[in-house]
Amino acid sequence: MRIDIISVVPNLMSSFFEHSICKRAANAGLVEVVLHDLHDFSEKKHKQVDDYPFGGGAGMVIAIEPLTKCLDTLMAERTYDEVIFFSPDGLVFKQGLANQLSLCTNMIFICGHYKGIDERVREKYVTKEISIGDYVLSGGELAAAVCADAIIRLIPGAIGDEMSALTDSFQDGLLAPPVYTRPASFQGMDVPEILRSGNDKLIEAWRHEQAVQRTMQRRPDLLTD
Amino acid sequence: MRIDIISVVPNLMSSFFEHSICKRAANAGLVEVVLHDLHDFSEKKHKQVDDYPFGGGAGMVIAIEPLTKCLDTLMAERTYDEVIFFSPDGLVFKQGLANQLSLCTNMIFICGHYKGIDERVREKYVTKEISIGDYVLSGGELAAAVCADAIIRLIPGAIGDEMSALTDSFQDGLLAPPVYTRPASFQGMDVPEILRSGNDKLIEAWRHEQAVQRTMQRRPDLLTD
Repeated sequence: MRIDIISVVPNLMSSFFEHSICKRAANAGLVEVVLHDLHDFSEKKHKQVDDYPFGGGAGMVIAIEPLTKCLDTLMAERTYDEVIFFSPDGLVFKQGLANQLSLCTNMIFICGHYKGIDERVREKYVTKEISIGDYVLSGGELAAAVCADAIIRLIPGAIGDEMSALTDSFQDGLLAPPVYTRPASFQGMDVPEILRSGNDKLIEAWRHEQAVQRTMQRRPDLLTD
Repeated sequence: MRIDIISVVPNLMSSFFEHSICKRAANAGLVEVVLHDLHDFSEKKHKQVDDYPFGGGAGMVIAIEPLTKCLDTLMAERTYDEVIFFSPDGLVFKQGLANQLSLCTNMIFICGHYKGIDERVREKYVTKEISIGDYVLSGGELAAAVCADAIIRLIPGAIGDEMSALTDSFQDGLLAPPVYTRPASFQGMDVPEILRSGNDKLIEAWRHEQAVQRTMQRRPDLLTD
């Protein structure tokens, strides 16, 4: 898998891609994440990439030329399954979409910044708009990192213990049950007896019951979706 | 505002806090974000911070001792409004919660990793559990960065143009209208005539109509919430 991320502040994401699971997956040859600085595609003297919005109002807009130049350059080099723009307008990102995108070969992620990107780029190039949640961020960079992380960890071999991904929250439509580790007793708080019983069947049943209970209490919407 | 972030891989977030709006807000004395490496609070020989889960199964669990030691140290130094743990089990993060948290003075963010943290820490210390969306990430670090960004940009003075934050998506329960910048015509795609009319009242009305239309098309749930 290859992910090209276009941003006006790619540095903002660099430590994430250098330290995370994404780095491990990259080292294993499973994924290549390439950060592109939009300023490199500006033909203006000061490498400017934004401009005032038509119609006035607060905030700047990412200009159409450097962005389409970057997109055209990449799309001439290879075929992309998806050109994704991160925006509050987008499809709300959920685990099912992460599963689906983990099957892609090449993807472009466009990070908005300031007041957004020129609408015409969205109309002409973007194949999917994704929102990682109903809140406003300073730019699409964190959304791109979140989306990359959720997708990349699903690639077989990306995380050490594949079983671990399969038992995560949401994969079976349930939240995960509580977890405990040593010591068995800490400041008067004990680990549930059953987890120390050694009876795998009972433990499995307890965990499932806890997962269902927790989902009913905290996220009943997940059960009816 | 002060935010203490506890993590087993704080480096993963460093470039974000060094380049983003958060850095600008820190330079302006509006916020202090302090990253804590959980390994510094481990008393084990190799600074280990995780252990096997009781009851067996895949994945490691962040141990109770280094985490409570870190929390106790911080909580002895100042009073915290919130101790937040990022987890898929948590309250789904939305703009309203960001607005609310932007009024806090001191907060602790705990980033989970591996299979999670020992449940007893959640019971004893955590005041709020937050999920940034229905997907699984490798750790809470990106969630912490997302949450910090959404909150910090709301602090008066954090972003250059305060009006810009007020006209963002969600703040009025609507998605933002499309934006355009120069050139007015690009590869046969023109900017809507009205935005070039110079008539502020008509432009305002058009934008509101576009915002309502877009919200009805893409996120009708926002209108009924």
